[in-house]
Amino acid sequence: MLGSLLGTAAAAALAGCATGSTLAPQPVASKPVMGLKAAPLPEVRLGLIGVGQRGAELAQTLCRIEGARITAIADIDAVAIDKTLALINQAHAPRPEVITGSSGAWERLIGRSDVDAVVIATPWELHTPMAVAAMRSGKHVFVETPAAVTLNEAWLLVDTSEATQRHCMMLESCCYGRQEMMLLNMIRQGLFGELVHAEGAYFHDLRQQLKDVERGPGSWRSLRYAQLNGNLYPTHGLGPVAQYFNIQRGDRFEYLNSQSSNARGLAAYASRELPPGHPHARLPYITGDVNTSVIKCASGRTILLQHDTTTPRPYSRLNTVVGTNGVFSGFPDRIAIDMMDGRKLMTPSGNREASREWDSDMKPWFERFDHPLWKQLGAQAQQGGAGGMDFVMMWRVIYNLRQGLPMDQDVYDAAAWSAVLPLSCESVADRGNAKDFPDFTRGRWKTPRTLGVMV
Amino acid sequence: MLGSLLGTAAAAALAGCATGSTLAPQPVASKPVMGLKAAPLPEVRLGLIGVGQRGAELAQTLCRIEGARITAIADIDAVAIDKTLALINQAHAPRPEVITGSSGAWERLIGRSDVDAVVIATPWELHTPMAVAAMRSGKHVFVETPAAVTLNEAWLLVDTSEATQRHCMMLESCCYGRQEMMLLNMIRQGLFGELVHAEGAYFHDLRQQLKDVERGPGSWRSLRYAQLNGNLYPTHGLGPVAQYFNIQRGDRFEYLNSQSSNARGLAAYASRELPPGHPHARLPYITGDVNTSVIKCASGRTILLQHDTTTPRPYSRLNTVVGTNGVFSGFPDRIAIDMMDGRKLMTPSGNREASREWDSDMKPWFERFDHPLWKQLGAQAQQGGAGGMDFVMMWRVIYNLRQGLPMDQDVYDAAAWSAVLPLSCESVADRGNAKDFPDFTRGRWKTPRTLGVMV
Ligand SMILES: NC(=O)c1ccc[n+]([C@@H]2O[C@H](COP(=O)([O-])OP(=O)(O)OC[C@H]3O[C@@H](n4cnc5c(N)ncnc54)[C@H](O)[C@@H]3O)[C@@H](O)[C@H]2O)c1
Ligand SMILES: NC(=O)c1ccc[n+]([C@@H]2O[C@H](COP(=O)([O-])OP(=O)(O)OC[C@H]3O[C@@H](n4cnc5c(N)ncnc54)[C@H](O)[C@@H]3O)[C@@H](O)[C@H]2O)c1
Repeated sequence: MLGSLLGTAAAAALAGCATGSTLAPQPVASKPVMGLKAAPLPEVRLGLIGVGQRGAELAQTLCRIEGARITAIADIDAVAIDKTLALINQAHAPRPEVITGSSGAWERLIGRSDVDAVVIATPWELHTPMAVAAMRSGKHVFVETPAAVTLNEAWLLVDTSEATQRHCMMLESCCYGRQEMMLLNMIRQGLFGELVHAEGAYFHDLRQQLKDVERGPGSWRSLRYAQLNGNLYPTHGLGPVAQYFNIQRGDRFEYLNSQSSNARGLAAYASRELPPGHPHARLPYITGDVNTSVIKCASGRTILLQHDTTTPRPYSRLNTVVGTNGVFSGFPDRIAIDMMDGRKLMTPSGNREASREWDSDMKPWFERFDHPLWKQLGAQAQQGGAGGMDFVMMWRVIYNLRQGLPMDQDVYDAAAWSAVLPLSCESVADRGNAKDFPDFTRGRWKTPRTLGVMV
Repeated sequence: MLGSLLGTAAAAALAGCATGSTLAPQPVASKPVMGLKAAPLPEVRLGLIGVGQRGAELAQTLCRIEGARITAIADIDAVAIDKTLALINQAHAPRPEVITGSSGAWERLIGRSDVDAVVIATPWELHTPMAVAAMRSGKHVFVETPAAVTLNEAWLLVDTSEATQRHCMMLESCCYGRQEMMLLNMIRQGLFGELVHAEGAYFHDLRQQLKDVERGPGSWRSLRYAQLNGNLYPTHGLGPVAQYFNIQRGDRFEYLNSQSSNARGLAAYASRELPPGHPHARLPYITGDVNTSVIKCASGRTILLQHDTTTPRPYSRLNTVVGTNGVFSGFPDRIAIDMMDGRKLMTPSGNREASREWDSDMKPWFERFDHPLWKQLGAQAQQGGAGGMDFVMMWRVIYNLRQGLPMDQDVYDAAAWSAVLPLSCESVADRGNAKDFPDFTRGRWKTPRTLGVMV
């Protein structure tokens, strides 16, 4: 039943075996892609595959960025195409070529000579097949989260980026949030002392997506809850933390332990909100409502990572760091610092001895520690959606491509962050026992460097 | 070096082998102590062992409770004795017998015929030896947290309570907090739907205790950071959650996975705040600053439990529950509920569709769901310390003893909640791999009952 709902290719990818002609493994290249620079592009010509909810958003954002031009869009859904064309038109941008028809039509997009870079915003199990094919066609790839759903896929991305020397960056927009970038800035200035622990999450009540059947994320995502039990969507919480910890630039994820609670949220919601005959009314939901994973880093630092999209919990990504000199926590933001500028900080109550109260007034902190890129782009960024993080992210992508600079995150990051999905499923099925992260860098993580935006 | 600082007996207990004549194992009794009732006591005559910071607080609280009389106190420290006598005197309560001198003098207290129940508030590794000896002397035991520091000790408590048919309750005051009891009340009324996950913690910046050398918790607790790596103090966060989940009354803790971050907080603090020659300046601190454990319950529910006493993090016990119909989180309190009284709840923004915002105004919730016991005792309770939870706890202890009723929590709870300490240490040392909880109830957990205050 699931197989037919999902489509056989998708089901096969999720089951761990990437198939199809575009996926035949290639010989491993010896040349790594850390710090990869490609020839500068005066204008970046983009092809978008998947212009549903997310792809349309990205199209809108790209229309606002100088030096970016959308030359082609591909989708199987005519409604999505029309909506996106209208948005591009509203933005007074040139009309892109439209590629549609069959589920394989996107391959025509990656073959086009007027496309330098491909943006992929399709359902999860299509990310790696499309990304690999695009790189093999000589395109740079910018792929939605998660970049891969199996460890094989994650390796395939790495091998292909190395073999083709093309960029493969995951569009983890949360790395570009104003809060996250301020925190990164504070951390790099040593405000928190030595970091020992961090926390990220994806808490987002998506139960209403059960209602979507024909199109929209509910039409495919709801089925994942009947297939996988682990952290289905790890990278929004993990990407920013990886930046705080400089993961794969002197540290790495070593192993994780993962547990899922029982799965009750969707069944309860479905029985309350869906008519009995609805296709999502009686799926055998197995994704535990709350997944809790803990990642051990080579440095000894720990990361708590949670996932909950099926209970009435208010939105949060936690965004918490704990250091010897201070603690920050997000949603809502609050901070507690011991020493600053060489003296003990006053807490809001004026108690100089104890740094034991949260300071929740972020204004003075933003004034002092707002990230330089946000100072530069903030006003412009906040005219768009998602609090402006999408704008800052795509601005950086286009800027780096035009300058011929390395991307802020590379294929090794995409692989390691996405690997939490399959590893957490394995660990959940095995009493939370430790599952090792592959070292996608083949030992090169040991060289200290800086991850994320440097300006 | 540590051995001499700690005292050999204490070091041996922490190392996992309970020794000494009072600890020789007794044959296992067949008679369980679930729901144990003892003969009603018209007045409860109490002996207190350990009247340092905590013991003095408990003495003060007991002086305010009708039907309780402190007849004896024991401590090795004359300063602690004098301070406690002064507090008892201030409360116009009769002067208790004083037992002091050697480190074994407390054995005279448990032999006294004017003592019905013993309250133990000494350093951790003395809890079980003192509790076991007191039960064998026919006394009921009320022991501070954690009740045991090894699995052997936890079993010894269970075996001894069964063999002697004496109460052995751990004084987990957080089970009696107003917030926790309101939440318990809400949960029992079904407000959160089916619970799937909960979270507890002990976040308490105790670094300043490093400065204590002669007396006070720092004089002994600081040494534990050089001996154990795990969750050193699990029960403040876990006790309330156990009540929400009715643990050992239809559900049980099955196994846990535990990870510790690296240990940096104390060394950083010591090098900043202590003179180089201070006894705590250069201890080899090994307790990871942040311990993160996840407990799997037989029902499938999960519990996240954290510990951090060595960074500048503001106080919290998390106190979070996640259910199919709602979520509650503490420190500060906030709630999000889907359906109530048969209709969709309005969120603070007035959006009926989405329950995706926290409601942080607890006043109307307290008005409706304040626990009956808090309604009864609240005004009186809040005249004392710790937000009144100590008063409510001790009031219940005395009430139940006088009525000849079972205690709200029993020795199986003390054993299971305390077992997190040794199990987390084991798991941390083994890559977070699963460690099984012993079934201290010998299978009797399967009978559904209610844990905690019933009124
Ligand atoms: N970074 C973020 O903040 C963010 C936010 C939302 C979604 N996402 C990610 O974006 C991706 C898309 O999610 P969405 O919410 O837009 O879902 P969606 O269902 O609205 O969009 C997916 C689109 O892909 C199209 N598609 C499916 N198969 C195709 C094929 N073979 N060829 C061409 N097009 C095809 C669908 O028709 C649809 O329009 C997902 O990976 C999701 O996780 C990221
Ligand atoms: N429930 C709570 O909220 C709470 C709060 C604080 C402490 N505690 C617990 O209470 C216990 C005591 O902690 P504290 O902060 O009061 O520490 P403390 O050091 O202030 O008090 C311990 C007392 O035990 C005495 N003692 C040590 N060895 C003894 C012996 N052989 N015979 C008699 N007395 C002896 C010490 O002299 C001291 O006065 C600990 O287990 C701690 O975890 C619980």
